[in-house]
Amino acid sequence: MGEQTHNLSFILEKTQSLKFEDRPIPHIRSPYDVLINVRYTGICGSDVHYWQHGAIGSFVVKEPMVLGHESSGVVVSVGDKVSSLKIGDRVCMEPGVPCRRCIRCKEGRYNLCVEMAFAATPPIDGTLAKYYTLPEDFCYKLPESMSLEEGALMEPLAVGVHIVRQAQIKPGDTLVVFGAGPVGLLCCAVAKVYGASKIISVDMNEERLEFAKKYAATQTVVAKRESAEDGAKRLIDTCDLGLGADAIIDATGAEPCINTALHALRTGGTYVQGGMGKSEINFPIMALCTKEITARGSFRYGSGDYSTAVGLVASGRLSVKELITGKVKFKDAEKAFEDVKAAKGIKTLIEGPADLGVDSSAQQVNGD
Amino acid sequence: MGEQTHNLSFILEKTQSLKFEDRPIPHIRSPYDVLINVRYTGICGSDVHYWQHGAIGSFVVKEPMVLGHESSGVVVSVGDKVSSLKIGDRVCMEPGVPCRRCIRCKEGRYNLCVEMAFAATPPIDGTLAKYYTLPEDFCYKLPESMSLEEGALMEPLAVGVHIVRQAQIKPGDTLVVFGAGPVGLLCCAVAKVYGASKIISVDMNEERLEFAKKYAATQTVVAKRESAEDGAKRLIDTCDLGLGADAIIDATGAEPCINTALHALRTGGTYVQGGMGKSEINFPIMALCTKEITARGSFRYGSGDYSTAVGLVASGRLSVKELITGKVKFKDAEKAFEDVKAAKGIKTLIEGPADLGVDSSAQQVNGD
Amino acid sequence: MGEQTHNLSFILEKTQSLKFEDRPIPHIRSPYDVLINVRYTGICGSDVHYWQHGAIGSFVVKEPMVLGHESSGVVVSVGDKVSSLKIGDRVCMEPGVPCRRCIRCKEGRYNLCVEMAFAATPPIDGTLAKYYTLPEDFCYKLPESMSLEEGALMEPLAVGVHIVRQAQIKPGDTLVVFGAGPVGLLCCAVAKVYGASKIISVDMNEERLEFAKKYAATQTVVAKRESAEDGAKRLIDTCDLGLGADAIIDATGAEPCINTALHALRTGGTYVQGGMGKSEINFPIMALCTKEITARGSFRYGSGDYSTAVGLVASGRLSVKELITGKVKFKDAEKAFEDVKAAKGIKTLIEGPADLGVDSSAQQVNGD
Amino acid sequence: MGEQTHNLSFILEKTQSLKFEDRPIPHIRSPYDVLINVRYTGICGSDVHYWQHGAIGSFVVKEPMVLGHESSGVVVSVGDKVSSLKIGDRVCMEPGVPCRRCIRCKEGRYNLCVEMAFAATPPIDGTLAKYYTLPEDFCYKLPESMSLEEGALMEPLAVGVHIVRQAQIKPGDTLVVFGAGPVGLLCCAVAKVYGASKIISVDMNEERLEFAKKYAATQTVVAKRESAEDGAKRLIDTCDLGLGADAIIDATGAEPCINTALHALRTGGTYVQGGMGKSEINFPIMALCTKEITARGSFRYGSGDYSTAVGLVASGRLSVKELITGKVKFKDAEKAFEDVKAAKGIKTLIEGPADLGVDSSAQQVNGD
Repeated sequence: MGEQTHNLSFILEKTQSLKFEDRPIPHIRSPYDVLINVRYTGICGSDVHYWQHGAIGSFVVKEPMVLGHESSGVVVSVGDKVSSLKIGDRVCMEPGVPCRRCIRCKEGRYNLCVEMAFAATPPIDGTLAKYYTLPEDFCYKLPESMSLEEGALMEPLAVGVHIVRQAQIKPGDTLVVFGAGPVGLLCCAVAKVYGASKIISVDMNEERLEFAKKYAATQTVVAKRESAEDGAKRLIDTCDLGLGADAIIDATGAEPCINTALHALRTGGTYVQGGMGKSEINFPIMALCTKEITARGSFRYGSGDYSTAVGLVASGRLSVKELITGKVKFKDAEKAFEDVKAAKGIKTLIEGPADLGVDSSAQQVNGD
Repeated sequence: MGEQTHNLSFILEKTQSLKFEDRPIPHIRSPYDVLINVRYTGICGSDVHYWQHGAIGSFVVKEPMVLGHESSGVVVSVGDKVSSLKIGDRVCMEPGVPCRRCIRCKEGRYNLCVEMAFAATPPIDGTLAKYYTLPEDFCYKLPESMSLEEGALMEPLAVGVHIVRQAQIKPGDTLVVFGAGPVGLLCCAVAKVYGASKIISVDMNEERLEFAKKYAATQTVVAKRESAEDGAKRLIDTCDLGLGADAIIDATGAEPCINTALHALRTGGTYVQGGMGKSEINFPIMALCTKEITARGSFRYGSGDYSTAVGLVASGRLSVKELITGKVKFKDAEKAFEDVKAAKGIKTLIEGPADLGVDSSAQQVNGD
Repeated sequence: MGEQTHNLSFILEKTQSLKFEDRPIPHIRSPYDVLINVRYTGICGSDVHYWQHGAIGSFVVKEPMVLGHESSGVVVSVGDKVSSLKIGDRVCMEPGVPCRRCIRCKEGRYNLCVEMAFAATPPIDGTLAKYYTLPEDFCYKLPESMSLEEGALMEPLAVGVHIVRQAQIKPGDTLVVFGAGPVGLLCCAVAKVYGASKIISVDMNEERLEFAKKYAATQTVVAKRESAEDGAKRLIDTCDLGLGADAIIDATGAEPCINTALHALRTGGTYVQGGMGKSEINFPIMALCTKEITARGSFRYGSGDYSTAVGLVASGRLSVKELITGKVKFKDAEKAFEDVKAAKGIKTLIEGPADLGVDSSAQQVNGD
Repeated sequence: MGEQTHNLSFILEKTQSLKFEDRPIPHIRSPYDVLINVRYTGICGSDVHYWQHGAIGSFVVKEPMVLGHESSGVVVSVGDKVSSLKIGDRVCMEPGVPCRRCIRCKEGRYNLCVEMAFAATPPIDGTLAKYYTLPEDFCYKLPESMSLEEGALMEPLAVGVHIVRQAQIKPGDTLVVFGAGPVGLLCCAVAKVYGASKIISVDMNEERLEFAKKYAATQTVVAKRESAEDGAKRLIDTCDLGLGADAIIDATGAEPCINTALHALRTGGTYVQGGMGKSEINFPIMALCTKEITARGSFRYGSGDYSTAVGLVASGRLSVKELITGKVKFKDAEKAFEDVKAAKGIKTLIEGPADLGVDSSAQQVNGD
């Protein structure tokens, strides 16, 4: 148990410079908080972006910061008033805690809270550490049927759930998803559960499209260099979309995809910007106007997204295991960053340093 | 009554060439149709665009076409099954008739019907003629308190109602409207009825802003040449908008306005594209994404918009008289086009040739 | 083809008196109409109610009326402007045609049109005849994968789709459905496609519950004679519903079910009245008030419901074959009515008199 | 300042037994809390119900409890992290604080939180005391244009705002409000701001109807002893409601009103249960079903309701002064309870014991 006094953390010291550091174990600040021994963490494009560029938009890394925000772990300590969790429980961790008091929080859109404290968004430390603390209501107990590895995938899945909700998919809708990376793939899988009748995955990478087809897409289309109008026409013709798709999700942030999407929608269709890219792009605003398209941004996840994500996997309606294409030890964390940078595989997980004194029984029960 | 065999019409013969022509009086095609003696017609930017350029987007004037679509008139004949109107009734005319059978029509968004027959959108003739025929349910009886001149303003008012509905304004919301032309002004007036607490009109033309302030805006801001971010900051600071406006309407179609709008919205705010301009513009797509903005196009008007427009004026909650800054005789119709082209006044009406044999009693009753 | 001059029909002459009659073949009244040779017709409770009581609410059978409204058939003639169907096409028939002009029609809720002409609702004749005419947009072409028998089930399935839409079910929701008759069962099946995580079927008939469990329910509960509060508590405890169900559908119209439902909902839950029963009942209005429940009626089906129904079956996501528990020849139509009256089986279909001159090729293609 | 150690409170000792008691001044429990010197408190039916019966539904007064929940006051102390308020600020007090952590809170419906701590709902003490503590985000600063008396009216106004929101009133809608007590009257006033074209107040008390007509109703109808169907017909005929009202609010809880309401709605109309009465009533469930009515409960107020209420009064769009028909000193608090019990006047306020050491400057600024 002596080991509990140490909290090994994986830190972005400054742009392009990563290191390990032993930091103090975080304190439980509120009676509703729990302390978690982090076990698995996935890496996504934004982690890599901070590593390479030291900033995303107005969020600039000024002090060394722990990275990571896609994590699962085991509860090692609970506050006095915690009622939904106990020591040993395996959980996935929603990594952003809002203020709970502003109008956005109170109207049910806490992901838009301007005081949000989000893991690995400067200056808030991330989850790539042995220990991390969260309020109990931002931890979701994993049922026995789910592994901690799957738990780490709940973060990108919650992103996908939120995007599909923004797209207001309902049974029978036709949907196009640009981008077959982790988020695009998960959008396809979620849209299937929401009842979309056609789920068309578009990407330049044919290998990813093959994966998409096996995983969740009903059709795939290879993106080509062509005008947005031509691309839209080809998409509609190839996939028999009639007057256009009911909904289109962009999970790339790429200008040609976004333009093709606007032209491929039917009148009254819905567009969702899920992918991050250049701040400004050329955009067919008159297509939005005259087709009366609804275009929505999708930012992280909010009320109900994480619990829906866990529910979908727990009930077997959606599977995330296929997306885990690599696992590295904590000491090799940098390798996971290199994988994402090189677009190698789909999702590489970093295994956190286990706190063996606490959760052995949980391990036995779940056998993972 | 011999005059009824003639149907004097104002025609766009080809690009930049207008003329008068006596055409046959249109037939009532269905038992639900009425024949109307058109009395007042307003001219808007799209009329002028067809005149000057012969086309708007994919709509190209290939045959001579009657212009005009903002009209009011007097019923001179009714089909067998017409039950809501009788000869002599004064009406405003909703100038686009959808197919009523497609999925868009049946789901309540008939303005998005791809088979829409819209006055003065090629190849459909417009309303600048002595007679025009419409189904009874696209004619709205004017109450005694409303004049036929006001009736002609119901078209741009319905445009404003539709835009404000797309913006989902509710009591207490803060709203910015870019553009203080007829539609922008009417958006301000409608937003007032919908309970917006701040209605900020933005334009480069200070005279129009003065009008806007007197008419419906609670505040006005002069647009300047500056970056979109600076413009947004100035708008928020000047008007005390806190974290940004709840909703912003663009009634200009101009790139700088659209960009400023996206930066001036709060997280979760709503943007509506009402104005028409360049097909493609530079657009801050990441602002839409990370602020989770909902951006909607607004195209013409649909279910309930015209009746809401008439109701607002009839009940005295909204006034449109102020916007009528000129009136010309039918033979001087071209002058109204010149006025709009020169941005002279706010709305010039063309008085149609009266069918004196029919509505004299109605004239007496209403005294207009 | 001489047979085409005859239109054998099954008629309710007066209360409790059924007969066959050869009536004139209906005319195609509009260029958008088609004439259909009706092939299969299901019978539901309302047909039986007219037969037994001669009226439902204010709808009273005053003249002999053809019964039936759950039908599929083969197109034998098309109007001049029909573009979506051709002779020989197999279709299911949406049996109510609204006025298309009133505000309810134009706002997208045509099932609420007060001028609705609905088959076998007096004084409109039903579909239990050799021929029936409908506008093309109320006929839905069956894909090759679907049989005409399944086509006849699209009517109750559309009822189920509409009810589940009124309940606003989304992935992860918990749902209780009272009643395991055809509509209740189909609600369970549709809710599954809409992603409900728990679908609890409640009925007094244990055989039906067994069917429900195999068909679409995740859990079943036997209804008992007990207070509504006790029943609600038992339901919540048995099915682990926490603070109550997210949504409850009543497909019985029975007072005890409705009362139990209101007590078993969570705060903010949704209740849908799908079943028809006594006009007035004892109702826990304060539970609705203090739990801020949304209670909605569901009446027939509207925009998109039929096409969703066909799409669900065509894509294999929902199966209706299991519900067809009997088939009788047209001459034995009364037997189907007796079956429903006796609650025998789930759905008995009446096979209509085929027009052999027309659709033999279609028959070959589909092999049914 | 010595007086600050005392906290004179008005207490329900047990059923029908009221008394004064000097209790300890409450502590600021969180750094976001403020301490308020309560200045004005209104009394409503639920306060009287606890007094007379000792319970409302499952909420039973088991220990002596401070009454009152419609209050305004002056901030006398602020927690370390309070940023929106300072000592001397005049505020109205939202008297229910939710847990902020449950799914209802996080989805934006905190009024449905099952852990809500609501003033004067057992076992939580009410606001009829010299001092009361609340989180800063449940206190709304009154602008200079508003008096503390008006501030006390924000509670019933927030109730009205919430009810009208549940009714989804939009410009042009026709609305009937049953009951012309404080909440019914405020519903009429709010509906006016939301743009309702007809606002029909119904009550048995003709004096109240006269008030309603002057205050906010466009029409009034005297309730009579008649069948619900007859009452609905009379209402529709008298007020020219065509196929029925778009929305109806019940602010009485009385069975005859509720039944008349359901019959007076158009197909697809909206009903809101705002008034509290008998737990169970006779209810026309088939009218709800076949007209596809949406019936919603309305419980207290939630996200945005209080700030909307303050905004409406601050901007002059809604006035509440007229409703204050009496004021009594704190020592005569029981008289205010007697007034409500006797239905005397509309709203009697109790003036709280001022803490003179703190807010004299605020008093000067606002001159009240």
